[in-house]
Formats: sequence, C-alpha cells, structure tokens
Amino acid sequence: MVVHTPTVVFQQHSLGRKWKNLQVGKLYGGLFWKLLQNFIIFAQQARKTMNTYQERIAQLREMMLQKGWDAVVVSGSDPHSSEYPSARWQQVKWLTGFTGEAGDVVITHDHAGLWTDSRYFIQALEQLEGTGVQLHKAGVPDTESIPQWLADRASVIAVDGLCVSAGFVSLLKECCGDVHIENVPDLLEGLWEDRPEIPVSPITTLDVECFGGRQRMEKVEWLRKWMLLGGTDCVLLSSLDEIAWLLNVRGNDIEYNPLVISYLLVTQESVRWFVRKSHDCLDPDTADSFDELMGEGVSVEDYTDIYDALRTYGAESLRLFADPSTLNYHLDEVIRESFREDMLVYGTSPVILEKAVKTASEIENLRQTYIDDGVAMERFLYWLENEVASGRPVTEWEASEKLTSLRSEIPGYRGNSFENISAYGPSGALPHYVTPREGSAVIRPYGLYLVDSGGQYLSGTTDITRTVPMGPCSEIEKEDYTLVLKGMIDLSMAVFPKGTTGHQVDALARMPLWKAHRNFGHGTGHGVGYYLCVHEGPQSIRWQYNPQPLLSGMVTSDEPAIYREGMYGIRHENILLCREDGVSQFGEWLSFETLTCCHIDTCAVIPELLGPEALAWLNDYNRKVYETLAPLLPPEVARWLKTKTTD
Amino acid sequence: MVVHTPTVVFQQHSLGRKWKNLQVGKLYGGLFWKLLQNFIIFAQQARKTMNTYQERIAQLREMMLQKGWDAVVVSGSDPHSSEYPSARWQQVKWLTGFTGEAGDVVITHDHAGLWTDSRYFIQALEQLEGTGVQLHKAGVPDTESIPQWLADRASVIAVDGLCVSAGFVSLLKECCGDVHIENVPDLLEGLWEDRPEIPVSPITTLDVECFGGRQRMEKVEWLRKWMLLGGTDCVLLSSLDEIAWLLNVRGNDIEYNPLVISYLLVTQESVRWFVRKSHDCLDPDTADSFDELMGEGVSVEDYTDIYDALRTYGAESLRLFADPSTLNYHLDEVIRESFREDMLVYGTSPVILEKAVKTASEIENLRQTYIDDGVAMERFLYWLENEVASGRPVTEWEASEKLTSLRSEIPGYRGNSFENISAYGPSGALPHYVTPREGSAVIRPYGLYLVDSGGQYLSGTTDITRTVPMGPCSEIEKEDYTLVLKGMIDLSMAVFPKGTTGHQVDALARMPLWKAHRNFGHGTGHGVGYYLCVHEGPQSIRWQYNPQPLLSGMVTSDEPAIYREGMYGIRHENILLCREDGVSQFGEWLSFETLTCCHIDTCAVIPELLGPEALAWLNDYNRKVYETLAPLLPPEVARWLKTKTTD
Repeated sequence: MVVHTPTVVFQQHSLGRKWKNLQVGKLYGGLFWKLLQNFIIFAQQARKTMNTYQERIAQLREMMLQKGWDAVVVSGSDPHSSEYPSARWQQVKWLTGFTGEAGDVVITHDHAGLWTDSRYFIQALEQLEGTGVQLHKAGVPDTESIPQWLADRASVIAVDGLCVSAGFVSLLKECCGDVHIENVPDLLEGLWEDRPEIPVSPITTLDVECFGGRQRMEKVEWLRKWMLLGGTDCVLLSSLDEIAWLLNVRGNDIEYNPLVISYLLVTQESVRWFVRKSHDCLDPDTADSFDELMGEGVSVEDYTDIYDALRTYGAESLRLFADPSTLNYHLDEVIRESFREDMLVYGTSPVILEKAVKTASEIENLRQTYIDDGVAMERFLYWLENEVASGRPVTEWEASEKLTSLRSEIPGYRGNSFENISAYGPSGALPHYVTPREGSAVIRPYGLYLVDSGGQYLSGTTDITRTVPMGPCSEIEKEDYTLVLKGMIDLSMAVFPKGTTGHQVDALARMPLWKAHRNFGHGTGHGVGYYLCVHEGPQSIRWQYNPQPLLSGMVTSDEPAIYREGMYGIRHENILLCREDGVSQFGEWLSFETLTCCHIDTCAVIPELLGPEALAWLNDYNRKVYETLAPLLPPEVARWLKTKTTD
Repeated sequence: MVVHTPTVVFQQHSLGRKWKNLQVGKLYGGLFWKLLQNFIIFAQQARKTMNTYQERIAQLREMMLQKGWDAVVVSGSDPHSSEYPSARWQQVKWLTGFTGEAGDVVITHDHAGLWTDSRYFIQALEQLEGTGVQLHKAGVPDTESIPQWLADRASVIAVDGLCVSAGFVSLLKECCGDVHIENVPDLLEGLWEDRPEIPVSPITTLDVECFGGRQRMEKVEWLRKWMLLGGTDCVLLSSLDEIAWLLNVRGNDIEYNPLVISYLLVTQESVRWFVRKSHDCLDPDTADSFDELMGEGVSVEDYTDIYDALRTYGAESLRLFADPSTLNYHLDEVIRESFREDMLVYGTSPVILEKAVKTASEIENLRQTYIDDGVAMERFLYWLENEVASGRPVTEWEASEKLTSLRSEIPGYRGNSFENISAYGPSGALPHYVTPREGSAVIRPYGLYLVDSGGQYLSGTTDITRTVPMGPCSEIEKEDYTLVLKGMIDLSMAVFPKGTTGHQVDALARMPLWKAHRNFGHGTGHGVGYYLCVHEGPQSIRWQYNPQPLLSGMVTSDEPAIYREGMYGIRHENILLCREDGVSQFGEWLSFETLTCCHIDTCAVIPELLGPEALAWLNDYNRKVYETLAPLLPPEVARWLKTKTTD
C-alpha cells in the first residue's frame, strides 16, 4: 500500500513562500542580495523538480499569500452541485490530478488535503502520490470533515462561491465561528490556462407519450400546488436533474448525465428557464425545443439573467423557496441581498422525492429497457468468454469498448450512464476503477473480471454490475463471490411494511459478509434516475442513517461487494423497483421487483454457503432471464445462455 | 373489538359545565331559575349514573373550571420519571382505571384522552370502556403526541410539575407557543382520598465482591472525571436506577424495581444522597446501609432537602449538570430560579451508558444467574405439562404463582423483575396481559400458553418469554410460532461491525414475519439492568431510530412476537449479551451470546419454514440447555428435558 509522506513538499513550499516574501519585501543589501540570489536559484531548482500539480498548488499558495487567505476550499462540484461536473469545473482534477467522482480539496499554507470517501481511498493514494496532497478519509470515524478540520486552522477562507453550496458555507460558519469567508467566483481562473468554457450542447425535449412520465405542465401545476400549500410565491431550482425532470428537457452538458446547465424559476404565473442559449447559432434540435417550451408558456432566458430576475422578485417582495443543498453560495448571496429574511424559505426541494417515485408509464418502459440492456450485456458476456477462451489477449479497455458498442445498438441509446468500469483481477479492488485507454490489464482465463456499466436511453437509465469467473477461481474468491451474492439476493427478497427506510434493510445485504467478518465501505444502494443521473436521492440503502422511507415506485440499486487490495474486487448489482405488495391485518406491505435482466454466473457459487432460499432465488432468476432474453438473442448466444442458466 | 364511543360522556360533561357556569353566573330570573333547578336535578341524575372514573374526571373538571385551566396533563410517571411508579403516583390508574405500564392522560373540558403505545391498545380499549376516556395510539403514524394535540386546544395547561419531566414541558412549550403552563405539585391531592404516602422501604447495600460490579467510590471517581472533562461542578441524578447503580444501594420503594426514592448530588468534594429517612425508627438494614455509606463519605440527607441544597449551590455559582429527560419540571423550576443560565448544563446523563455496559464480574454472575433462572423455568414447564396432561384445571394465575414459588427457591432471589404474564390462548394476544387473581383462564391441553417473567437476584435481573404448545396446535399457530422463532434466532446469530445500532439489526428479527405480511407493534429488544430495572437504555433494538450503537457488555432482549386478537399471542424472548467477536482486515466485530438458558419447544416448529441455519441453531441451543441444566434438575425433570431437547 502506498503511504503518502508529505514532509518533502512542505519544505519545498516553505522555500517558495520565503522567496516570495523576500521578493515582495524589496531588500537590497550586499550580502543579503547575494543570499537572495542564491535563494531564488535554489527555489527555481526546487520548482523545476516539482510536478504539474505541485506547481499549480504552489501558484495557488502564492495567490493566497497576495490576497491574505489562510485557506482555499476547492470543490469537486459545479454551480449546480452536480455529481459529475463538466470539464470547466473539474477543478480538483486540474489542481491535484485526482479523478474520482467525489472529492474536495483544502489548501492552506502548510497543508494540502483531499477529502474523498472509501470508494476512492486506494485510487486517491495512487493519484496523489508525489503531489504533496494528503488523503483525508471522509466518512471514516475520527476523520474531521472539512469545516471541522478548518475550525482552528484558518481565519480567512476563500471559496469559489459558484462551486460550493450555501449549505456547505453555513456548516463552515457554524464550525469555524467568526471566520471570514471570501467569496471569489471562478477563483482558479487566473491560474488555469485554457480553462474550458461552460458547455453548450444541443437540447432536446422528451416525448412522454412514447417514453413515459408526465407532461411538463402537469409537473409545473403540481409544483404550483405545493407552493400554495407552503405559502411561497416562487421556487428556484438549481439542481440540473430537477430542472431536466420538471421541464422534460435533456442535453449533453455533462458527461454521462443528460443535463442542461441552467436555473429555473417557477411562480404561479410564469416558468422562466435560464439557460446558455446563443440566439445567433441555435442548432435545429435546440431551436425546436425552445419553440416547444415557449409554446407552452415557458420563457427561455439567458443563464446569467438569473441574478437580475431574483433581484426583481426580491424587490417585488415575493416569497422565495430554494434548496440550500444544491444552491451555490454565490447565488445565495445575491438572494440574501435581494430578499427580506422573512421572504426566504430554505428547505429540501420537493422535486427530489417526486422525481424518485416513477410513474406507471416510466415503470413499464423501465422493464423493457432493462431487458434491452440485458441483451447487450449477454452478447457482451458471450463475446468475452469466447474471446478469452480462444487465447486472444483481450484488454479491459477493449472489453469496455465492445460493451459500449453493443449497448449503442439498442434503440433509444443516448450514451453510457457513467464511465464503464472494466476491471480484471487487482483492478477490481478499486470500487471506481478507471480503465485506462492504454496499458489496461489483459483478461486471463482464470480469476474474476468485474464490469460495472449502464446506459442512458430515452426510456430510462440502467446500471448493472456483474462479476464474471473467467475460469478456475480460488476458494477465497468463491467464498467472497457467494457471500456477496447471498447479500444481494437476501436484500432483493425483502418484504417490509410501509415506512421502512433503506437504512433498516441495509444489514440484510451485509449480514452474510459480516458473519465471515467481511464488509464493504460504500453504500449498498442508490436511487437511479429515469434517463437522468445514475445516482439520485432521496432514498438510499446505506449503513448511515437516512430517514427517507422506501416508497412504491422508487428505483434503487442493490450492490454489495468486497474488495481485496492487490487481488480482486467482487460486486453484484441488480436494480430493484420498490412496489406495493398487498395489505394484511398487520399493515401495508412493500417488496422489490428486480428490473435487471442478465444472468449471474453460478460457476463460482458455493451452494451450501448460499443456502437453499437464495439458491432457489438464483436458479429461478437465471431461468427467467433465459426465458426473457433467449428470443431476443442471436441463436448461438441463446444456446450459450441456456448452458449458463441451467441449475 | 371494543369500539369506544365518547359522545355520551361529552353530553354529560356539557351539562356539568353549563350547570357550573350558571351557578357561577348568579342569574336569578323566574323562568330561568326554574330551568336552572331542572338542570341541576338533571345533572345530579347524570352524575348518579357515572362510574368511579367518570366521577373523578368530572371532579377534576370542576377543579379546572374553578382554577381557569383549559387542560390538565396527568402523567403515568413519578418525580423520577420511573417506568413503574409506586402506588402514590399511579395517578392514571386512579383517574381512568387504566393499569398499563405506560400511559399519560390529558383532560380538557370536552375531551379525555389516554396516550399509550401499541403494547396496551387492546387492554386500554377494554379498561377505558365506560370511562369516557378516549385512546390515542401513541407511536402510530398520524397520531399527534400530547404536545401536538394540545397545540390548538388549550391556552392554560396545568401539570403536576413533580410528575412530568422538564423535557416534556419544553416540548409542550415548543409545540403550543405562548401557552401558560401552571405547575401544581400534587395536583390531584385534594380529589384523591386516602392517597398513598411516599413509600419508605428498607435499604441494603451491595456486596460487589460477591455479586459483581464496581465499588461505589470507583464509580463516583469516574463521574468526577467526567465532570472535570465537561467543566461542571455538580451533577444532579434524579433517575432512581442511576442513583442505585452509582451508590450500590437497593430498596423496595417501587414494585419489581429494587430502587430507593431519592436524589443524588455529586461534586468534586461531596456525595449527597437525599432520601426519605426517618431518624427515629430506622430498620437495622437501612441503618447499616447508611452507616456504610457515611463511612465512605456519602452524606445522607432528607429527601425534601434537595431544594435547599440546589439553592445553595446556585448561590455559590456552581455549574450544574442535569438530565432533563428524568428531571421533574418542579425541581427544574427550582434549579432555573437558583442558577444563572450559563451555570446550567442539560444533557443525557453519562450514567445511563456506563450502567448499560456490564463489567466482567457482572457478566460472569449473569451467566450463572440465567442458568439458575433456567432451572426454575424448566421445573415450572415440567410441572405445567404434567398438571395439564393429568386433566387438573390449572389456571393462568395458579401457574403464575407456581412459577414465582419455584423462582423464589433460587439463592439470591429478591422478587420478580415485573409482574408475571401468564396467558393462555386469547389472553396471550395482549402483549402486557395482567393475569387476574380471580377468574383467570384454565390452561387446556391444546393451543398456546405464553409466559413472560423474570427475577430480581443479587447477581442480576432476568427476563424470559416462552410460548408453550400445550398439545395439538393449528397450522396457523405453528406457522406463527415458527416465523417468530426464526426471527428471534436470526437476530441472535447476527455478527456486526462496531458502531452498528439496534435499529440496523431490528429487521433481522422481523423479516421472517414480514415475508408472510405479519408483524408486531412493539420493540424487538430493550436493555436489561443488573439487579435493577428490567427495562433500561440507552440501547434498544427497534423499528424506530435510536443512534446508540450496541456495545460489548450490553445486555439486550430479543423478543419478536405476533398477536392475534381473540386467538393467541406468541413471543419468544432470549436475553443477549453483546460481546467482542474479533478483528479482521475489514474491521472490529461484535456478536451476541445468548444468556437465557431454557429449552424452546420444538413441537410447534415447521422445520422447512425455520430453515436449516436456524434449525441447526435451535437443536444446538436445546442440546446445550440440556447439558447445562440436567445436572441441576431433579432426575425426573432432567429425563423429561432430555425428551424435549432431542432433535
């Protein structure tokens, strides 16, 4: 395991700072001048040995010194609290080289730290090596959060107010007392040469008759009723998937998430969409979409006009609702300046829950979409087994490309829902392994290959993980494979009364591993959007408490796992639809329907360890997968699937 | 099912109030006077048809009218927030006839309501019939809590400040806005003839060398260290089990709980125990106990001197710590008058957690105590089976008495830890059935008999439930019996990482029932004291969230159940010790050791439904019970147990 030693970097940094101080101080003595020259040469030499990230951090520290900042928080998010920011806002990656999907950085004069969760611990240690950035393991007991860590360490903290949420700054103020928070929009702008622009991709609207869901004005009317009940005049939506859901629009501004960078303001009289539109050169799709929206009374305005619109509403004494968890601090400052305090209502956006509960037509479409997705998966698994068995050296990257190409043949395919994780052997031990284009591992005819992937379709978003025994497996591989699978199955068989949360059923997926003193460090399940983000709330199935009950219509992943560093990773992931399961004298019941339709390899299963109930479930599941997919598969793949799914 | 119809009572009450209003109004017109006389006669007639509880409530309402109160809250607790108040504070029972262990009453001019939890729903409906008191099902979704219910219904609320906690009044103020709370200590005093006095029972001290635990001054030093860390000068303990635990004293002031009604003040210099002592006529045990305590520097003072002591500390500007969840409102008012606000620290008493984690010597004693208790249980079950088989009509009450007599033969026995629940057939459907001395059901040689009981011993407190198939059982009885048992076993087999809460493993005990759309309305597990209360915190295993992790050394019940009104109840209860279970690369592990040592009848088990893992556990458990108890049982009982515990 790579152990990070930050001391060298701190020394380099001290030099850099001293040199700067001397330069600024304009001291011109004889001996002193000589010394200073030596210092400068020494510092320049030190700089030469710096890598890109060390240099960028050093530049940032110079800027901090000039501005009088003790600390800078660089967030891994964008002005809309997006999980995957577009290139323009991949500031953590630019500054430190860390590419994980969750991570925030704090730079002080004597420390550089990255906070990320357990999915990225191994990856972070590898990617941060030599950058001087130290890993803070978020979510691990005793690890201070960023606000806690900063509490005694800084009195002036600069943030890019566009990229941190209002909620985060509240926490920061709460933890750090009378600290001064300096809001510097686009803080890294001066340091980051060739920083990408805000993306402007074509915008489409959804045909809900064909692809499920509700008409946008129906959703707007629902939101307006909610506003009346809560006594607010205006709702600001800043989260991109909420806006896309409400307006039935999709774009490509963010990789893997079919979203449009924008804000939305809804009042009883108006729906105003603030989006980066270029009136002169609209592509035909976008022009049509804007026409359709405007035809229904949605006013399409420029992205940057949101500030003036809010100022006007403030002046008109409207009561505004906003969600501080996705509202950026910069916009929040404008709001606080424009609205009287009693005219501001902060809370959890009602769209989050409404969006999570899929409609009957969305559910109908999802069932078919998961079958289509299963066809691509089975064709891929067939191809992989044959290629590897034939002795041809298939790399992780090639496999990933093959899977994408098979998925792209599905009607309605609109890209992948996240970057394929194609990981053989030790690569699988990184929960969010990024398969490199060059030099990825060759998949051998033994051991375990893990593939976590999903598609964006007009008729839904998919997410599936299969761990494939490529040939002979060791006993410990089989044990782990079976225990993880038992957890996945036990959770999918759960029945529970209305009101039950994911937190309460999480232990079902973990208990088989726990009984063997094994575990995994990430959540068991996340919500999945509908042709939207592959991760969505408000529900989750996690070890951490989340009071949101599981509701009929929610779509959630079930993905227990185990990771053995340097050896392999195993994850089995199906997507579960929560649905009504009848009423008895003891209450109203819910259970899960498995949407995912792709066989689970039984080669590595130890039947006694799986137990009769889970074994029966597995055989039944595989049989149903065969019956469903066989008519849709090429004959040779169907024949092969028959052999894979026979008890 | 008894449905309560309160309308008649409201009419009676309306009359009563009108009569009162008219009397007060002093209106002397001719026709009006005649009408008034008629009214009075009518009201008096109405009064004659009232039962005891209706009369008491009517008297209380008259008092409310005189005093100008809109509502009175009558709590089911005592000045120490005890679960089982002594006779003096059984005010809910006196006022409404309800005898459940948890229940609070609110009387307004047009409503009388009892709030209790699901354990008592059936019992409450039966006992409240004809009293005009309406059941409010606490803990059920949509049921308002007392503060919520009172929010729009009263502007002057009287409470007996001695019997409601400071925490409750805070909630009341929070929910009801600018309501006026009138603190009336001993509010019912004037109405309640022959109200019992505060009990004064003999006090003993514990020999920790023999019976486990830590020396009192060791505990006091631990508390003093805690005070230093938290910056408080004085700790007030008002919860009786915390005081008994800290001082290693026991009494009999409260039925089934070996407690002494008292307060405790601890500073760095002093330990002051405020207890009802009668200097003139101390019994020898109490005199010895006081001597022992005073010999170690504990000052023994009179119960009512707590007020002056607190006033003095307030005047001396000491910083006081108190737990608002067990501090009564009256005492809290004295505190708030005596201490500056910044000299008051409210929080959860540290004693609760410290007390819950049993010491090595306590655990050693508990193991033996549960074996001794098991001997009494097995002798009882042997006796019961033979008596019933012989055709003699054994009643629930007789069985209960027999069990108590067998338990009382155990060395160190100090009484039962709660009132035996001895319930045959339909009686078992009441989770907290109170077996009547006269007219209890005869136990027949078929169907299910439920016995929930426990003992207080110098070496610990026990609690066990067995449901006994008395002969042939129906299919549904067997199904329920097996599913509840599977839940009990599944939970007891759990292994989990440190940090896991009871909330996270609760579903394990329920899932077998849930899968059959069945459930039970109470918690799965409660903490158990050590020769203290049979119910203690802070941990629990419940459907409701409780953030307290399960810790090594905690003793918790595991008691899933099912109740079928009018038919039967099934509950299987073992007591589990949480203990260390090793360390692996994935974390530190905990699991349960079953302390309870009494066989579980396999007659009503459906093996396929129980499943192989739980079946193996059951056979193994029964074998161990036989091996442990056989040498301690009379030969004929041992022989019988052999037949009951063979696979």
